[in-house]
Amino acid sequence: MAAQAAKRVLVVAGLGNGGGTGAASARFFAKNGYSVALIARGADQVKKLADEINEAGGNAAPFPVASYSVDDISTAWNSIRSHYSAPNYSIRAAIFNVAHGVWKPFLEVTPQDVEESLQTNVAAAFAFAREAILSFKENDIEEENGKRGALIFTGATASVRGNVTTSAFAAGKHGRRALSQSLAKEFGKQNIHVSHAIIDGQIATDRQRKANGPAWEKNQDVRLSPESIASSYFYLVNQDRSSWTWELDLRPAHEKW
Amino acid sequence: MAAQAAKRVLVVAGLGNGGGTGAASARFFAKNGYSVALIARGADQVKKLADEINEAGGNAAPFPVASYSVDDISTAWNSIRSHYSAPNYSIRAAIFNVAHGVWKPFLEVTPQDVEESLQTNVAAAFAFAREAILSFKENDIEEENGKRGALIFTGATASVRGNVTTSAFAAGKHGRRALSQSLAKEFGKQNIHVSHAIIDGQIATDRQRKANGPAWEKNQDVRLSPESIASSYFYLVNQDRSSWTWELDLRPAHEKW
Amino acid sequence: MAAQAAKRVLVVAGLGNGGGTGAASARFFAKNGYSVALIARGADQVKKLADEINEAGGNAAPFPVASYSVDDISTAWNSIRSHYSAPNYSIRAAIFNVAHGVWKPFLEVTPQDVEESLQTNVAAAFAFAREAILSFKENDIEEENGKRGALIFTGATASVRGNVTTSAFAAGKHGRRALSQSLAKEFGKQNIHVSHAIIDGQIATDRQRKANGPAWEKNQDVRLSPESIASSYFYLVNQDRSSWTWELDLRPAHEKW
Amino acid sequence: MAAQAAKRVLVVAGLGNGGGTGAASARFFAKNGYSVALIARGADQVKKLADEINEAGGNAAPFPVASYSVDDISTAWNSIRSHYSAPNYSIRAAIFNVAHGVWKPFLEVTPQDVEESLQTNVAAAFAFAREAILSFKENDIEEENGKRGALIFTGATASVRGNVTTSAFAAGKHGRRALSQSLAKEFGKQNIHVSHAIIDGQIATDRQRKANGPAWEKNQDVRLSPESIASSYFYLVNQDRSSWTWELDLRPAHEKW
Repeated sequence: MAAQAAKRVLVVAGLGNGGGTGAASARFFAKNGYSVALIARGADQVKKLADEINEAGGNAAPFPVASYSVDDISTAWNSIRSHYSAPNYSIRAAIFNVAHGVWKPFLEVTPQDVEESLQTNVAAAFAFAREAILSFKENDIEEENGKRGALIFTGATASVRGNVTTSAFAAGKHGRRALSQSLAKEFGKQNIHVSHAIIDGQIATDRQRKANGPAWEKNQDVRLSPESIASSYFYLVNQDRSSWTWELDLRPAHEKW
Repeated sequence: MAAQAAKRVLVVAGLGNGGGTGAASARFFAKNGYSVALIARGADQVKKLADEINEAGGNAAPFPVASYSVDDISTAWNSIRSHYSAPNYSIRAAIFNVAHGVWKPFLEVTPQDVEESLQTNVAAAFAFAREAILSFKENDIEEENGKRGALIFTGATASVRGNVTTSAFAAGKHGRRALSQSLAKEFGKQNIHVSHAIIDGQIATDRQRKANGPAWEKNQDVRLSPESIASSYFYLVNQDRSSWTWELDLRPAHEKW
Repeated sequence: MAAQAAKRVLVVAGLGNGGGTGAASARFFAKNGYSVALIARGADQVKKLADEINEAGGNAAPFPVASYSVDDISTAWNSIRSHYSAPNYSIRAAIFNVAHGVWKPFLEVTPQDVEESLQTNVAAAFAFAREAILSFKENDIEEENGKRGALIFTGATASVRGNVTTSAFAAGKHGRRALSQSLAKEFGKQNIHVSHAIIDGQIATDRQRKANGPAWEKNQDVRLSPESIASSYFYLVNQDRSSWTWELDLRPAHEKW
Repeated sequence: MAAQAAKRVLVVAGLGNGGGTGAASARFFAKNGYSVALIARGADQVKKLADEINEAGGNAAPFPVASYSVDDISTAWNSIRSHYSAPNYSIRAAIFNVAHGVWKPFLEVTPQDVEESLQTNVAAAFAFAREAILSFKENDIEEENGKRGALIFTGATASVRGNVTTSAFAAGKHGRRALSQSLAKEFGKQNIHVSHAIIDGQIATDRQRKANGPAWEKNQDVRLSPESIASSYFYLVNQDRSSWTWELDLRPAHEKW
């Protein structure tokens, strides 16, 4: 280690409107000493979250993208690598939280629905993973946890089960899970830790809060809080090299499953 | 039923060079009374197989495609529906056997590899399934097996496991499996039977025969014969309504797994 | 092969009251040329089924057991081996269809419930499998299907999912499934084929017929017929060596899953 | 909450010789404020670990058992409930770490091997779970994590895969996993959290340290440290009610899987 350790950086993609898992992860990691690089669509939203974190004493920077295309993701990562560069910074964690949900009877699913699900849930995950792993490979192994870096993918019930009305979504989510398992097996040997979290229930995002009302929101037994998911992600990132988790499920206490 | 029953038609997509599962299925179903509509790239190859089946006393017709795009698949099915039309014919079975295999360390996987895997393994499967189900919905329920139609997807080990060097292939194959499960759940209630076969071993295709030599080819304990897979597909198509299989695995007797 | 081929024998354990999967399998295999050895509790019931099969022109013999203990199972198999001995007979197939179902909230499950579930669903399956495999190992490999013998275990939804009220049953059924997978991997190399069938729905047994009424019984879309399961078992036994199935699921066309 | 909060108690069963997961969990929870009740065979070993924890400033008590029979487990829990009784203590966590491993080719597995595996891996787990849940149901819900209690089962690769030489072990481990899933579903609604950890690799227990030598022991990339597993168990116990994990896998960074 250098006399002055590099500051750890988290890159997170997929922030919704700032009320879900991605944003909560950014806040949580920021509070726990990470600088956070924010990738999402909607420059205003991304800047707003970065400002919020910075005003709260954290360190965040916005890297908005026009789309989750391979090129846009690559460009964002290049900007991040310039912004948070060695020796002051070291990119140590990455969360891919982008999702494109489609819930329709099969015959209503359009070719475009399929394309978008595959592009956002899978192809963008490949592009993000590539950038994360290329960055991690430059790192030394942290003594504390034995890692060059940790990469987490957000999954869902649809990652392990196809269901009526989820064909397009499940196809994308299954594909992402396969990617995460392949990466975990290939890069574990290089001390890069890849995980997949199956979120098996409704998250108390802003949209769900509105849809389900305040009683639902208050009842922590029936919905996932984004902050709680974020704390699980932080746990995964900190698992030491002797026992890494590839996959865990997360659901509210009272969930029927 | 009409006084003169309509002749059953199988539509099969993905024929390789005529020595694999798709072609063997076409031959097997043709021998067992089905007319077969052949979809694949390479007009010469497709015609050659149709000729072979017709010369052997079967009934086959070629429907070559330039690509497995949604439009090309749709056009092929429309031609098939014209060629094999009611009341003489009834499209009762469909096999989606197209695959795009990529085996590379993750960092060598290009965005194009990912796109092609997703397009061929998943998006084309959606397009093919849509056409099959639209056709099946027009059918009455067969008394014998309680079906309007049967749709089979060819899967692989990579359908259920991501591995080093299989990230792009496994992402596609996982996605296809999710589709098949969603369809099985949604359309079982409409007496449309959807299945997924996990081929867990090497198939004695022409390419593999060349690669592995005659001793390997002769040893039926160590490789799958396309004919044997075809007979399993025929079994699936004939399962009666009281007990349908969504998924089965197929591997050689001596396979290590 | 000898000038006069040995007659194939099926051993089936677990016959209920003669209206379920085990009995249907005995009838089905008998009609297809197998001699059948019947193992079950209740000497009268077992004899009644043997008589029925013999009167219908088949060949069956009863081997009633007082319990499914290791000793009783072993004794029954020894009697079977004496009764159906070489060179006239060759034991080629075995079906373990015995089950002990317990459906109770966990706190009502007694230690005896657990013991009985483990004994009947797992320990008896080990004992039965041991005898089957010892017999199969004596056989030559059949040319037709490349097997010394085929062993099938009846499973259930509870084989792959623990649920509220199924703790004891699921523990037993999961254990049986693990056994079947271990055996499939170990003995495939010796050309002994081991399979596991997940019966995911209600079977139209006599008991279920009474409970659900004639409309349910008539509606083949909503319940499994024992005969249909039997025909799937026959299919598994006849799969050729190049493509064996370890596991398949079976459910009615309209089942919600 | 009372003016003086009750002290949390962990009950852990299965301590090996003090160098594995159970003992490490006892030490870890003790260091983090839990009193620990130790259940295992071998009174001397259990007392030795209790003494060690007490000397290190923790609070531990030995509850040795002659066997993992239902009665012995019940007796131990009754003693624990007397020793660590309200209002001073509250039993909040329980870890079932007992295992009976058998690795033999199937035909060498004796009926006794099967019985022991089922008794220790499954029946004892049922008995332990019953006592834990009966105790937890007496608890109020902790504000911090929304739980009456947390119950963790130690699993293994054999929990999800049967393999050559693991038939008896896998049958037991699969059965335990089924139990854990049933419990998680039934008691989540009562704010009792049940988890299952798949330990997919070799643990650096005393026995393995001797077998594999000091280079292996030092190389944290290739074996699980019991302390690290313990910290994962502590994480599970502390997950808040909005996002509970039923199952996670744990393996060393360099494990091939």
